[in-house]
Amino acid sequence: MTGVRTSGHGVGGVAAGFPVVGMIGGGQLARMSAQAASAMGIGLRVLARDPRESAARAGGDIWWGAHDDPDAVRAFAQGCDVVTFDHEHVPPPLLESLLAAGIAVRPGPQALIHAQDKVSMRRALDGIGVPVPAWREVNDLDDVAQFGSEHSWPVVLKVSRGGYDGRGVWVVPDLAAAASAMAGTELVPGAVWLVEAHVAFTRELAAQVARRPSGEVVAYPVVQTVQRDGICAEVVAPCPGLEPEHARSAQAVATRIAEELDVVGMLAVELFDTPAGVLVNELAMRPHNSGHWSIEGATTSQFANHLRAVLDLPLGSPQPRAPFTVMVNVLGGSDSQPYSAYPLVLADPSVSVHMYGKDARPGRKLGHVTLLGADPDDLLARGRRAAAILRGEAVAGL
Amino acid sequence: MTGVRTSGHGVGGVAAGFPVVGMIGGGQLARMSAQAASAMGIGLRVLARDPRESAARAGGDIWWGAHDDPDAVRAFAQGCDVVTFDHEHVPPPLLESLLAAGIAVRPGPQALIHAQDKVSMRRALDGIGVPVPAWREVNDLDDVAQFGSEHSWPVVLKVSRGGYDGRGVWVVPDLAAAASAMAGTELVPGAVWLVEAHVAFTRELAAQVARRPSGEVVAYPVVQTVQRDGICAEVVAPCPGLEPEHARSAQAVATRIAEELDVVGMLAVELFDTPAGVLVNELAMRPHNSGHWSIEGATTSQFANHLRAVLDLPLGSPQPRAPFTVMVNVLGGSDSQPYSAYPLVLADPSVSVHMYGKDARPGRKLGHVTLLGADPDDLLARGRRAAAILRGEAVAGL
Repeated sequence: MTGVRTSGHGVGGVAAGFPVVGMIGGGQLARMSAQAASAMGIGLRVLARDPRESAARAGGDIWWGAHDDPDAVRAFAQGCDVVTFDHEHVPPPLLESLLAAGIAVRPGPQALIHAQDKVSMRRALDGIGVPVPAWREVNDLDDVAQFGSEHSWPVVLKVSRGGYDGRGVWVVPDLAAAASAMAGTELVPGAVWLVEAHVAFTRELAAQVARRPSGEVVAYPVVQTVQRDGICAEVVAPCPGLEPEHARSAQAVATRIAEELDVVGMLAVELFDTPAGVLVNELAMRPHNSGHWSIEGATTSQFANHLRAVLDLPLGSPQPRAPFTVMVNVLGGSDSQPYSAYPLVLADPSVSVHMYGKDARPGRKLGHVTLLGADPDDLLARGRRAAAILRGEAVAGL
Repeated sequence: MTGVRTSGHGVGGVAAGFPVVGMIGGGQLARMSAQAASAMGIGLRVLARDPRESAARAGGDIWWGAHDDPDAVRAFAQGCDVVTFDHEHVPPPLLESLLAAGIAVRPGPQALIHAQDKVSMRRALDGIGVPVPAWREVNDLDDVAQFGSEHSWPVVLKVSRGGYDGRGVWVVPDLAAAASAMAGTELVPGAVWLVEAHVAFTRELAAQVARRPSGEVVAYPVVQTVQRDGICAEVVAPCPGLEPEHARSAQAVATRIAEELDVVGMLAVELFDTPAGVLVNELAMRPHNSGHWSIEGATTSQFANHLRAVLDLPLGSPQPRAPFTVMVNVLGGSDSQPYSAYPLVLADPSVSVHMYGKDARPGRKLGHVTLLGADPDDLLARGRRAAAILRGEAVAGL
């Protein structure tokens, strides 16, 4: 077999006694999970659709198939010690069939439904008394009009299923805009419309916890997130200037949701911070963009803790390694050639550059940069500059 | 291709414009380099011999072949942007033939020879005035006897090539022991014997620098290393209580060696600290066991900086993230089952566990643990305990 590329044979294995975690979905969350798994000697088997996906490019134990193809998912899951997720789009009945076949699925479908379906999530949070914006399931424009007159315009219109990174969410100033959004959108199977009050928030926050089946929970510091066009753009950990009471409240809400909904693995709770307290916006039951800072910035990264949690191992410390850590996403620009920007971006010797192996397209998440230090404003300025360079923008002073 | 494991097809790729680094050798250094490469979006192609090797188990862009098989190495190197090393055993003529074929080899064979051959190394260091223990090339026992009478017994007998992790090195108390070692050892091609004065050192140190072809050099903090049976057992970064003058001297020596010998990539200089100053013991021109602490403990790990250096990218900051970082190696014991020890070892939430995917054998390097903090004695105690648990030893208090 001399000199022959045969990376499909015999690779992606583990030492005797080590487990294999199956992750459905081949995006950057799977890629960064594979880096954490490799460090711990744990196998990460990934179900990907296309060799150009982030995790498939990194290689390892890659299987091909769609997340909603029962035959592909069942074949993939055989031989995994536990199955978990890079995204929340696997159909619940398929996950139930894995459970019925004796395969561990974490988080389980009964928990995951609340990250898949915003109506299920809102109902469950109402049921356990966690504060959320006013909301209502709506069937037609009349229902939207009624909600808008009871609360005030603008309102936030959402599809209950199938959205991500800002897709499936519209801030609509009036009924005409709502009509346009509803007319122009085909709902995925099982999806309905809901409408929410538009919250005048001070800032957006995210609270992450890891939870293992035995019940142990660890809470990461509450971070500030900045969204642009519905996509996470920047994260500062911990959130500068956050009232300690709001920080405690956000962590308590995340812990309570994890426990009440029986979440296993990482849970990210996106929140609105308001003068009156925090309100829950969205949930994700997997590693999340708001936790990428933890790779360098915390004793245990969200990726390592997700693996530890789904394997029911003791959880690692979420303690920060520096007073502040800043993460800035790198999105594709009109002419992004990220590697050609490396000489310039790495000239700041403290920037940690993460690129996901994805080909550049405008608006696509291609990577992120991380900086640790004492001054969040300085870190943000340097992080934004680094991300702009990687995106291919002209940067002042160069 | 639904549900079919085809990890050999299309994986191990990079996004448009990103380079592929070829690493010859499939051990844990290649595995940890692959983790760093994946984070940066850089391709790491590995030449491995066996699917059970550490880097092959982690998967990715794995090719099969021996490091001294010219056809395998040449086929592997085609299409790599630069070729570098997991170990120093590739024959120099083979590397020269790659250079002749227009392939970038970093470090180059003219530098690497000094990490491959201890006589070449000693001569070069003498030539640039770097302090080393008294030494002499020896042809027979009479030469050893002469050296022993001029200096004092014990002396250190070494083979010039082919040793690693304590193999090929004997501390001999007398001529009979030297005779036994020489009679029982078959030299690899090109190897000769040398003998060195046995240094009464205060402690052992390692100084690591990264150097890129354009000349930029960064120096990591000087660390204390503890060797057992010739194998690196523990590292404390930075070395506690080291006289600042000795630390500066060790960094200056490492920088000077990198520059004078035209080393590209990571250079590890193992030194003896003595009351009179530091003496150079060994060199390694690759990531090195004495730098594993840098994965968590420094702004830029030795693996990331090796990749940056061989790609002639700006080097990352070697700044520590904590007052002290401790690394303890996990060696195989008589009945090691490391994964079954995870629930116990991870009960200390601040331990970072690295396992290399290698099957356990007594004395084999299976992994390492890392701890960051302010008190090196506390970190060492916890690190030793964690390593002992992973090794399968009975640990007091459990």
